Amino acid sequence: MNNTHHPDLKSWVEVPAGSDFTIQNLPYGIFKTDYVGPRVGVAIGDQILDLSQVATLRSFDDLDIDIKVFDKATLNDFIALGKPVWSKVRERVSELLREGSALAYESEKVLVPMEKATMLLPVEVKNYTDFYSSEEHATNVGVMFRGKDNALMPNWKHLPVGYHGRASSIVVSGTDIHRPKGQTMPPNAETPVFGPSKRMDFELEMAFIVGDNTALGDTVSVAEAEDYIFGMVVFNDWSARDIQKWEYVPLGPFLGKNFGSSVSPWIVTMEALEPFRVAGPEQEPKVLSYLQSEGDKAFDINLQVALEPEGKEETVISTSNFKYLYWNMAQQLAHHTINGCNIEIGDMYASGTISGKSPDSYGSMLELSWSGKQEIQLNDGSSRTFLEDNDTVIMRGWCEKDGVRVGFGEVRSKLLPAKQ
Amino acid sequence: MNNTHHPDLKSWVEVPAGSDFTIQNLPYGIFKTDYVGPRVGVAIGDQILDLSQVATLRSFDDLDIDIKVFDKATLNDFIALGKPVWSKVRERVSELLREGSALAYESEKVLVPMEKATMLLPVEVKNYTDFYSSEEHATNVGVMFRGKDNALMPNWKHLPVGYHGRASSIVVSGTDIHRPKGQTMPPNAETPVFGPSKRMDFELEMAFIVGDNTALGDTVSVAEAEDYIFGMVVFNDWSARDIQKWEYVPLGPFLGKNFGSSVSPWIVTMEALEPFRVAGPEQEPKVLSYLQSEGDKAFDINLQVALEPEGKEETVISTSNFKYLYWNMAQQLAHHTINGCNIEIGDMYASGTISGKSPDSYGSMLELSWSGKQEIQLNDGSSRTFLEDNDTVIMRGWCEKDGVRVGFGEVRSKLLPAKQ
Repeated sequence: MNNTHHPDLKSWVEVPAGSDFTIQNLPYGIFKTDYVGPRVGVAIGDQILDLSQVATLRSFDDLDIDIKVFDKATLNDFIALGKPVWSKVRERVSELLREGSALAYESEKVLVPMEKATMLLPVEVKNYTDFYSSEEHATNVGVMFRGKDNALMPNWKHLPVGYHGRASSIVVSGTDIHRPKGQTMPPNAETPVFGPSKRMDFELEMAFIVGDNTALGDTVSVAEAEDYIFGMVVFNDWSARDIQKWEYVPLGPFLGKNFGSSVSPWIVTMEALEPFRVAGPEQEPKVLSYLQSEGDKAFDINLQVALEPEGKEETVISTSNFKYLYWNMAQQLAHHTINGCNIEIGDMYASGTISGKSPDSYGSMLELSWSGKQEIQLNDGSSRTFLEDNDTVIMRGWCEKDGVRVGFGEVRSKLLPAKQ
Repeated sequence: MNNTHHPDLKSWVEVPAGSDFTIQNLPYGIFKTDYVGPRVGVAIGDQILDLSQVATLRSFDDLDIDIKVFDKATLNDFIALGKPVWSKVRERVSELLREGSALAYESEKVLVPMEKATMLLPVEVKNYTDFYSSEEHATNVGVMFRGKDNALMPNWKHLPVGYHGRASSIVVSGTDIHRPKGQTMPPNAETPVFGPSKRMDFELEMAFIVGDNTALGDTVSVAEAEDYIFGMVVFNDWSARDIQKWEYVPLGPFLGKNFGSSVSPWIVTMEALEPFRVAGPEQEPKVLSYLQSEGDKAFDINLQVALEPEGKEETVISTSNFKYLYWNMAQQLAHHTINGCNIEIGDMYASGTISGKSPDSYGSMLELSWSGKQEIQLNDGSSRTFLEDNDTVIMRGWCEKDGVRVGFGEVRSKLLPAKQ
């Protein structure tokens, strides 16, 4: 059976009900334990399939690939093998994990319990771009900053607005982030002040990882763009709103963002997401021809943000969906390269905050608290307008269809107090 | 003699009068020839000293360094050895190149004529940030875009405004750049159009290269910052003004910039620049304490832009100086890290366009032609407001004091027509 998506597939590895990591998923990550790694693994249930160990059993011998790519601290070398190889390896891993596979007899050798592993950043991020592709988010922010009549900038529906972000400070889930210090201009003040940010926020985003290089001067069309995408992660674009507000004119966000961005550790491949394609929003006015998109290029990915105060239970404070985005990934990549900008394996392209139409789907506290004017109620009786020290932010993403769940796991990070 | 700057030092290698590459300079670059490389070299006169070959002569044996760093395609590994090693190697190379050194007997083995070598990008650029640190440039642009009364944004004198740029498209001198295509909004039009940029420009900048890593959450003070800087290059930040103007609100420059930035191939070290320190402009109003700077942290580096139409001689169209910048490099780096943003070896931080007070010192055609309203006259009788296809832009930088010249060579690149 070549269909790695088939709902009837079952694994010899136990997959608990509701697990994100079904045999239809097979996401890639980098893990290490006290004894091995860092190396490449595939998530299955609560276990990690160690691809280095699978390779030593000669299970990939006939695929004609350099198995050293599985014994690396990032996925970049595996990704560089190219899309046909991603497909062959996915199919092989699917076969090896199916009920009846002889690999079950080697389970002690090839499986590592997730609870015994530490997940690392899955790719070396070469370049990072953040788009601004949710109409609802851009409108909400616009209304707050410029009023209802000028909410969306004139360019917004003509091109996927984006800006370059900081690659060095992208970290994996579980990495705590210190509240940043910086310069802000308090309301009605005449001179700026220095201190820890008082308006710390998250942004619910997803990011795609590029799987091929282009040469400077080359372009990637909307039709070709998906061939350049390896997979996706959930992305928390931490934001210090007060720092951002003071610094961002005229050249855009900088220190209000670049102190840290957090990603989920498992890269869900575009092949795993294939069954979850849906149509995106209609685009009106019509976009220029280099941005015109045919077919279903949005994906139905449920998204959730939970906030967990120190020592308390979490509260889900936002429920959104990746399919709400106005601009799709193919349009984003086509736009990014239309001027000849070259792309590289390991590049990360984030969506921008993903907000829906209803207030409970807003993807940032700036929107949920409407710039601090409305308290966000938590299950422990406390409330928030922006994040407090030691709050943990958890973002989750998953697809479900025909009884099959394909999930991203979570990106979970605690906001530590500012460093002294 | 430990003073590698001494004006009396003479090399056994012939250094033509007016050469940028004197024995007091000793900049590092990556070269290759038809037979060797890529590897690390030091420029001296019209020659390249091949450090791999010098190492095989055991000239570095007592320095306790891994000589494999000289046999690499980027300088990152050499830079990673740390500031004390940069210093030791500089001193040793200075000794080896002085009159009387026995290395003269090995000249055929260790020297490569520049005319037989191709220079490559000297570092793998990990992250790239562009500042906006010239008061004259920011004011000129502000006057053109917003009028005299609101020329400088309220934040400009309180912090070194900057934004993240694209690392992947930074290329070395000699790499031609295609005129980018993109979306623009013509004056008085109601919908945007697509096509090659009609307002192609350069920006005269310099960039510094970071020589050490920090951990996420750490800061670098103004006092420490220079210890984190390896050296500098001349930097052409190509800009498509019409693309930039339409896209840049509210998140900053993107496709108007990221199709290419060009750098000079030789990294002049901070140690070589030491004799050329000068005071920077007085900063009024006083900056916040984390940005306060003591001592001479500006550098007297003469800068020049020449434009060479296809097949014609060049015309110098701008003469500026790095010392004009309002914000110094130490302040830029301290600001960049004050929120805990981590820096990496190979990071490149550009200054922003370096304009002086007089119109002949403006560092971009946008300013030189005052947004296209004044023709820039060239020696061949033609004139420009923005760049034409096949124009070559040449930028040069050099210091001179006490009869000693320490120069950067040039960054020279041709603007090719847009790709079909």
